[in-house]
Amino acid sequence: MSRTSLLVVAHGSRRTASNDEIRQLADNLRQHTVDHYHSVRCAFLELAEPSIPDGIQQCIDDGATTVIVVPYFLSAGRHVAEDIPREVATKQHEHPAISITIAPYIGAMPELLSVVLGAARANPD
Amino acid sequence: MSRTSLLVVAHGSRRTASNDEIRQLADNLRQHTVDHYHSVRCAFLELAEPSIPDGIQQCIDDGATTVIVVPYFLSAGRHVAEDIPREVATKQHEHPAISITIAPYIGAMPELLSVVLGAARANPD
Repeated sequence: MSRTSLLVVAHGSRRTASNDEIRQLADNLRQHTVDHYHSVRCAFLELAEPSIPDGIQQCIDDGATTVIVVPYFLSAGRHVAEDIPREVATKQHEHPAISITIAPYIGAMPELLSVVLGAARANPD
Repeated sequence: MSRTSLLVVAHGSRRTASNDEIRQLADNLRQHTVDHYHSVRCAFLELAEPSIPDGIQQCIDDGATTVIVVPYFLSAGRHVAEDIPREVATKQHEHPAISITIAPYIGAMPELLSVVLGAARANPD
């Protein structure tokens, strides 16, 4: 069994519903990957809980030896380039035996093209 | 030939590079859909040009009779729920003969799950 956990990191919002969308996404991911990832959680850069360090700690408490942080951001701004790496580095320093890696932010994935086209084809809201 | 144009609407950023990511996305979409969409453009809610009304106008000037607006947003906040519909409604009122529809925002698309998993599998940055 893999000891790799996935941590989806979003910006966080003052709107509870927006944060709940991320929690729902993490739940859905967990259900789709029970055979693959040890656990799937989410964390927020600001305005919501858990924080990124707390989210990484939860993964470690789950028993993960590897944590993959996926930035749930569409563009490579300061949050992706500086804030997330800084928070991850602090936690990595605390837990040198755990491998914590940062995946590409989702806006960098070419598959987003088909998501946009899928939305265009879907019935309008 | 379809007379349907696609308008990808993003928030807009003070960072030129973030806005250019959206322009690149629109270019890539255009290249992938030359047989399907009359034109593919992008527009920004704020902080960058063109605005949403100007972007819709560009599609109409291209010759489109239908414009599909795709909100390039991850969560259904005020921008998606109120601001984009308001800007679209104004333009629709100006051009009653043109069909302008708003597609689901991309955060609502279930395919995002596989984008997150693809990012997790990709080599870390």
